[in-house]
Amino acid sequence: MQLTLTSLPNISLIKPNDNLVEVIIKSLKEAAIELRDDDVLVVAQKIVSKAEGRLVRLSAVTPSARALEIAAQTQKDARQVEVILSETKEIVRMRTNSLIVEHRLGFVCANAGVDRSNVEAPDGEEYLLMLPENPDRSCADIREKLRARVGVTVGVIINDSHGRAWRSGTVGIAIGAAGVPALLDLRGHPDLFNYTLHATQVGLADELAAAASLLMGQADEGRPIIHIRGVPYPLREGNARELIRVKEMDMFR
Amino acid sequence: MQLTLTSLPNISLIKPNDNLVEVIIKSLKEAAIELRDDDVLVVAQKIVSKAEGRLVRLSAVTPSARALEIAAQTQKDARQVEVILSETKEIVRMRTNSLIVEHRLGFVCANAGVDRSNVEAPDGEEYLLMLPENPDRSCADIREKLRARVGVTVGVIINDSHGRAWRSGTVGIAIGAAGVPALLDLRGHPDLFNYTLHATQVGLADELAAAASLLMGQADEGRPIIHIRGVPYPLREGNARELIRVKEMDMFR
Repeated sequence: MQLTLTSLPNISLIKPNDNLVEVIIKSLKEAAIELRDDDVLVVAQKIVSKAEGRLVRLSAVTPSARALEIAAQTQKDARQVEVILSETKEIVRMRTNSLIVEHRLGFVCANAGVDRSNVEAPDGEEYLLMLPENPDRSCADIREKLRARVGVTVGVIINDSHGRAWRSGTVGIAIGAAGVPALLDLRGHPDLFNYTLHATQVGLADELAAAASLLMGQADEGRPIIHIRGVPYPLREGNARELIRVKEMDMFR
Repeated sequence: MQLTLTSLPNISLIKPNDNLVEVIIKSLKEAAIELRDDDVLVVAQKIVSKAEGRLVRLSAVTPSARALEIAAQTQKDARQVEVILSETKEIVRMRTNSLIVEHRLGFVCANAGVDRSNVEAPDGEEYLLMLPENPDRSCADIREKLRARVGVTVGVIINDSHGRAWRSGTVGIAIGAAGVPALLDLRGHPDLFNYTLHATQVGLADELAAAASLLMGQADEGRPIIHIRGVPYPLREGNARELIRVKEMDMFR
């Protein structure tokens, strides 16, 4: 059984209103990859956010009193805090240099995914990049357009690098998904010796996101789209909301 | 850039004192894979634990008063709790059906990794399986023996499926590693636009563990060893302890 991940080549810097589906199709052709049903494409959050124009010019932001207060406590830029708060449902932890929040989409992550690095600034201004407005919808959109353009049905994941409780280092996780069993439910399947498995909801889309992240790298945007072939589970409808543990079921908030 | 994961074929059930290195070499041959320097092998925790004889016969366990008390609070088998406690440094959370602990090796995980499913019981007795005594050492041992036997230097990871804070579903993580940059430090590298990256310690061994987990499946042990080729970073000495966030630095305990 084999799983093959290929980074799509020659993807230039993505700008607002770029058509990611055409970028994918062109790059697949250059890689001589013929897309097949049940392939999975993992797309880096940054290029989806950029294509969707989720940029905020830092100099245009006026921090609120609350943003100023939190900025003082965390020693962050108050304008950045203002943008973070605009994407935040609830602050989970706050310390110097750390602001862990529940994003309006439900993920617990640092800075609501608002990112300053790797944001092109042709006008010399500084920009912040927010997560896509609705990453599941972005994935579904890419999936539908690929189906219309190429006639195949693939899974699509948007991944991002998140920190974690208990462990050092970021790992790729799925912030959006379409056509993938994001949470794979194996509960109730007996194992080889007929014990019923107990902990067998697998975060499949997160494992795919992590695998893709291995090839994407961090410090450049040269490999923001990864093609995966050989996922050993039937694809189905699905989305990244499946992976969010609701607060009431979470012992670690 | 391509990453290829291959599950090694025809691996029979592992028993105490089985020689995993010979199992790996035989199966690589059957898969017609010629091992190369910088390949990575990911081995499922269960077969390492079994080969190392980390089994406890349930009927031989006498629960302590503390185990009985915790069993009552969590509605778990008191004998299983006794074994869990023997592997535990500190209880992190405890609720009905949930016992999250800091394992003596430093991981935060459910039930100290003590597992009842998929444990062969030829004598009709029930057994529990504990994590390897020292998974980093087990990895280093496999790595050294492969180097001696085959003359190539690979990375070795032992993975396990762990639950997480905030998100549903388990993902594969590295509980042991050798010859792999478990925590990949990209801090200080400027990105494309010369911002210095801020969150760029990558949990590389965890991403490799998650990727391998995609092919291992859960409900059988037919694919417990995954061969990975194409990791786009230079391998180096390394171990899974790099990935453990010390309690004092952890906002989520």
